[in-house]
Amino acid sequence: MSLLRCSFVQSVFLWCLSISAIADEGMWLFEDLPVDYLKSKYGFAPTEEWAEHVRLSSVRFNSGGSASFVSSQGLVLTNHHVAADTLHKLSSPKNNYAEDGFLAKNRDDEIKAPDLELNQLVSIEDVTDDVNQAVTPGMSPSEASKARQAAMAQIEKASLDKTLLRSDVITLYGGAKYHLYRFKKYTDVRLVWAPEAKAAFFGGDADNFEYPRYCLDVTLFRVYEDGKPAEIDHFLKYSANGAADGELVFVSGNPGRTQRIFTVDALKYLRDHRMPYILDLLRRREILLQQFGFEGKEQERRARDELFGIQNARKAYTGMLQGLQNPEFLDQKSAQETKLLATLNADAKLRSSATTWDTIRDVQNRQAELLGQSASFSRMSRLYSIAESLVLMEAEDKKPSEDRLREFRDSARESFEQQLYSPAPIYEDLEQVKLADSIAMFVEKRGGDDLLVQLVLQGKSPRDRAAELVGGTKLGDVPIRKAMAADGINDADPMIQLARTLNSEYRRLREIDEELTEIERQAYAKINEATVAIQGTSTYPDATFSLRLAFGTVKGYVEDGNQIEPWTDMAGAFSHQEFHESKGDWVLPDSWHNSHDKIKLDTPLNFVCTADIIGGNSGSPVVNKDAELVGVIFDGNIQSLTSDFFYSDKVGRAVCVHSGGVREALRNIYDAKHLADELGR
Amino acid sequence: MSLLRCSFVQSVFLWCLSISAIADEGMWLFEDLPVDYLKSKYGFAPTEEWAEHVRLSSVRFNSGGSASFVSSQGLVLTNHHVAADTLHKLSSPKNNYAEDGFLAKNRDDEIKAPDLELNQLVSIEDVTDDVNQAVTPGMSPSEASKARQAAMAQIEKASLDKTLLRSDVITLYGGAKYHLYRFKKYTDVRLVWAPEAKAAFFGGDADNFEYPRYCLDVTLFRVYEDGKPAEIDHFLKYSANGAADGELVFVSGNPGRTQRIFTVDALKYLRDHRMPYILDLLRRREILLQQFGFEGKEQERRARDELFGIQNARKAYTGMLQGLQNPEFLDQKSAQETKLLATLNADAKLRSSATTWDTIRDVQNRQAELLGQSASFSRMSRLYSIAESLVLMEAEDKKPSEDRLREFRDSARESFEQQLYSPAPIYEDLEQVKLADSIAMFVEKRGGDDLLVQLVLQGKSPRDRAAELVGGTKLGDVPIRKAMAADGINDADPMIQLARTLNSEYRRLREIDEELTEIERQAYAKINEATVAIQGTSTYPDATFSLRLAFGTVKGYVEDGNQIEPWTDMAGAFSHQEFHESKGDWVLPDSWHNSHDKIKLDTPLNFVCTADIIGGNSGSPVVNKDAELVGVIFDGNIQSLTSDFFYSDKVGRAVCVHSGGVREALRNIYDAKHLADELGR
Repeated sequence: MSLLRCSFVQSVFLWCLSISAIADEGMWLFEDLPVDYLKSKYGFAPTEEWAEHVRLSSVRFNSGGSASFVSSQGLVLTNHHVAADTLHKLSSPKNNYAEDGFLAKNRDDEIKAPDLELNQLVSIEDVTDDVNQAVTPGMSPSEASKARQAAMAQIEKASLDKTLLRSDVITLYGGAKYHLYRFKKYTDVRLVWAPEAKAAFFGGDADNFEYPRYCLDVTLFRVYEDGKPAEIDHFLKYSANGAADGELVFVSGNPGRTQRIFTVDALKYLRDHRMPYILDLLRRREILLQQFGFEGKEQERRARDELFGIQNARKAYTGMLQGLQNPEFLDQKSAQETKLLATLNADAKLRSSATTWDTIRDVQNRQAELLGQSASFSRMSRLYSIAESLVLMEAEDKKPSEDRLREFRDSARESFEQQLYSPAPIYEDLEQVKLADSIAMFVEKRGGDDLLVQLVLQGKSPRDRAAELVGGTKLGDVPIRKAMAADGINDADPMIQLARTLNSEYRRLREIDEELTEIERQAYAKINEATVAIQGTSTYPDATFSLRLAFGTVKGYVEDGNQIEPWTDMAGAFSHQEFHESKGDWVLPDSWHNSHDKIKLDTPLNFVCTADIIGGNSGSPVVNKDAELVGVIFDGNIQSLTSDFFYSDKVGRAVCVHSGGVREALRNIYDAKHLADELGR
Repeated sequence: MSLLRCSFVQSVFLWCLSISAIADEGMWLFEDLPVDYLKSKYGFAPTEEWAEHVRLSSVRFNSGGSASFVSSQGLVLTNHHVAADTLHKLSSPKNNYAEDGFLAKNRDDEIKAPDLELNQLVSIEDVTDDVNQAVTPGMSPSEASKARQAAMAQIEKASLDKTLLRSDVITLYGGAKYHLYRFKKYTDVRLVWAPEAKAAFFGGDADNFEYPRYCLDVTLFRVYEDGKPAEIDHFLKYSANGAADGELVFVSGNPGRTQRIFTVDALKYLRDHRMPYILDLLRRREILLQQFGFEGKEQERRARDELFGIQNARKAYTGMLQGLQNPEFLDQKSAQETKLLATLNADAKLRSSATTWDTIRDVQNRQAELLGQSASFSRMSRLYSIAESLVLMEAEDKKPSEDRLREFRDSARESFEQQLYSPAPIYEDLEQVKLADSIAMFVEKRGGDDLLVQLVLQGKSPRDRAAELVGGTKLGDVPIRKAMAADGINDADPMIQLARTLNSEYRRLREIDEELTEIERQAYAKINEATVAIQGTSTYPDATFSLRLAFGTVKGYVEDGNQIEPWTDMAGAFSHQEFHESKGDWVLPDSWHNSHDKIKLDTPLNFVCTADIIGGNSGSPVVNKDAELVGVIFDGNIQSLTSDFFYSDKVGRAVCVHSGGVREALRNIYDAKHLADELGR
């Protein structure tokens, strides 16, 4: 599964230093595609119409992930693991769709997701000057950050009022450019088909990030408008044959975050501080949820989706840290940086930029001191996050939209409320265990003698305190949330009291964080300027969970001396189960075994290509030169994990579900001919 | 399993502050039993003969754990989880005794353990004055530590030469007393019978530290002398009926470590620094070994014993930290301490002792700074630990015995060599994974730019470096180890080179550690003195993995409003499996199912009592007033985990295997009538 669904992905908006993109590197802006490179290497360049069609056929899952329209009737194809959050929210002990799969026999059976928002990118506008003019030379970083955010909020608000489209200003090239993206939003999204978890995540945590793979990691949704399936002009035609070995393919999706611009100091901060910290945290949560799941079958079900996400992130971060700990990699980065600095220092006009590197080092040092300092339990407790939102909103809504914390601005209100009032189930037992652990960690990080810790604990153990809070709050009830937002907060609610206790410390830490982000933004914008002055332009910005086009070829690789073929097939899935003696997660679902004789076993199931992807690309359509869908991205192999910092197509690969495998499964395993027909296959 | 087998148990030698032992608290020295208390409360007091018989019937597993002699022919009864390390070393993919159990049909079938040493405590002598006279007033802590250790080494050496018995000076009451313990050693120890892991650890990690329980956590060994079963004068008679509800019972074993004397500052250091650090470490290793086990059946087998130990420790530490994070507990401790300090300050003669608390606080602060600073990989790599031992020994052996690091002194040489030359299997794949993770952690803790880190990595990633080291060393070969010890170290061996690289940093950190320990020792000795001056004597020292006698009654308890009965029976084991739908570790072995109709299902299997125990007590015999064996300690319930810091019999309980259950299993499940007969039942 790998890609995205990791809540630890920090949005750091930076661009890529490696100006001369070698090989098939790059997560390119649709507004600035590498047409010349493609033409010279592949003799093919996307036309404007081609690009517009692919862009409009692409879908962003606002919950984190990518997808595409695949029929004129609003059918959306994504990964099972992108859908998992929704499948989990729609499941109960009786109807465990997340585990057992789901099929709507007809449109009336399709089930509405409680809080999904899908985005289609309909227009792009450069607003760099409008954003930058808000920041004047004399401003402190904190003032600059506020002024910049106010400008962005105003631009977004004006666009929303004018077009009624979701309008987001996207920071690109680490703050050197700002583009206004307008999205058509779909909020009535219904579940159409999902295979069993055993088929989608065959091989489980052990096979995750490995290749060869045999996963049917796909799910179908349908977007509705006014209670009817939305009519879609731009959707991808379906290719059941897929792409040939060596064929050029394109990936259109929303890579979440890369850090290729990072200075050596910034990478060292990741290596020595941030990544080890996050890995400790992930392992802590993994064990916590494992233990909770031991308590029974229903507990296991409740914890499963989050546990998968955490295991996925733990494996990804382990791979990334291993890359950073390899001295060879940082030595290479260091040599490049030294060379660049030498050029800067030799140039009288550019010399002053060299101090920017020191600025970044100072920011990293301050960030290292702040690691683990948090005054929020919102990541681990949904009930707390609701309380926190209500308490913050109460104060923020008294200000003009452009002065508010970013998530409370008018232009984002609709999406924000969809989350706040989501009727998705909240499990008290799981909430309690997670909140207790969050409070325990708060005690550990600040020390038991800290005054705020004592205010949080109120003389009780973290466990007893969590039980009291979760047992006492009424925020699980959506109407009560709405009533508090409309008529004023009920201060008798213990979770609200806790959010009030932490409010000023939360704001203090957030202010520091935003100040540091602004300093970094200005610094990387300067580095960008200097580098462009030396090396010229024509590159792609670091990933920002906005739409990009990557490209590459279908291609195997050599691992430990063995040739790994680019394809796997359905027969391979069965042999893989046999090889692992049907142990652990190497068990295909009954539906596959029951259909064994019907399945065309040589149908391709998964394949790899060299396209440059990262977390957030999950569910991205893979298309050929004719813009036909040949596959869906669902993972990267373990060797691709360092692509956060640098791209290499030596052995790093994107892993895809093959369009032919999906078609075969719909027709001959899942009894869903009507969907295969709708795909045009 | 819980008790012991935790390599993270740090030996901190401290005694108990709570002078007026209430209830059935106490891990008493055999040389100073609470005869008056027992007489007044229970109308029974052990005679000297009774105490000597029980002491001589008690056995210490030098690998960590307790046991008892149970026949005149050298039969030794302990826990399966104490035996697990040996079972694991004796196992291969073909003969997996650790998992599948073992039964010697006759004495010729009994298998010799590769490196077990069993100790029987035969005499005790107070040598406090001899040890203390070595330390003179003007000495620095570091000098004092060395002088004290030299004195201890000399006393031990003289005793060994005179008696040929293993002679250890034990630090008691945090350094206020030193006793010389002489042990008869058994090093020819053979495996006689072990049940399957499924029976011994039924319910696995999920049931660990829980009650009611249904575990047959026992194993039988036999000690040999001169190739024949040793003739044993003192062994425990076997009671198949066991003890009645409310009956007084005694536990004779080796509790590993308690910290009841700790000052509030010392407990806060544990709460805010040491325990969170250790838990991060344990979770890291748990995930590492889980992941390794995913690779295949054989990998799972190789990692299992260590993984169980780590899960056990993680659960224990989690419970302990939860106790410390409860403000109620520390507030209570604080109040006691404030009162004691007030009394000290009011007394002109004692006033100066009050500064001792500050001394301890300073030591804690220094220890917090040192946390995670380590220059050894010996905990995670057996091959590295061999290299480290050889490199240290080379230098240490040039000094007189009393000046050496403690483990290299002459009196300990035989036991040391048994470990160093152990033929127990070393699995290269597992070694590699563990060493790679240790090196990665070394990089994290010191930072990738550290010079020593760079010397360790030699330009390679931790993973590649570990592969090179494990692949290149010859230290897996016992004759090569012996040759290097005898003829000089081969510096071409890469693991030896690594140990040399780390040698001076290892010694520097160890010196600091020994200095801090000495300061603490002197401080707690002073606190002891002052407290005795105020409150009188008659108490027990904190646990030091030396023989103690605890006592209590067989007694149920109330949990969440439910009455928990003290007993479980064999029928309960089958219902427990049914309740958990035979999932995960809730599967009894085939032998139990096949014998279901033969088993007397109302035979008691486990029971609880209020005796004061802790890790290290695993395998301790539980005896009645007639010194008959009624059970074997194998766990404490989750509520007993805080007994590291304080004892409470409200809900905290020791968990035991019932003697009747063992007898029934031998006769009617394991076809081992000859062993039941040898037990006299």
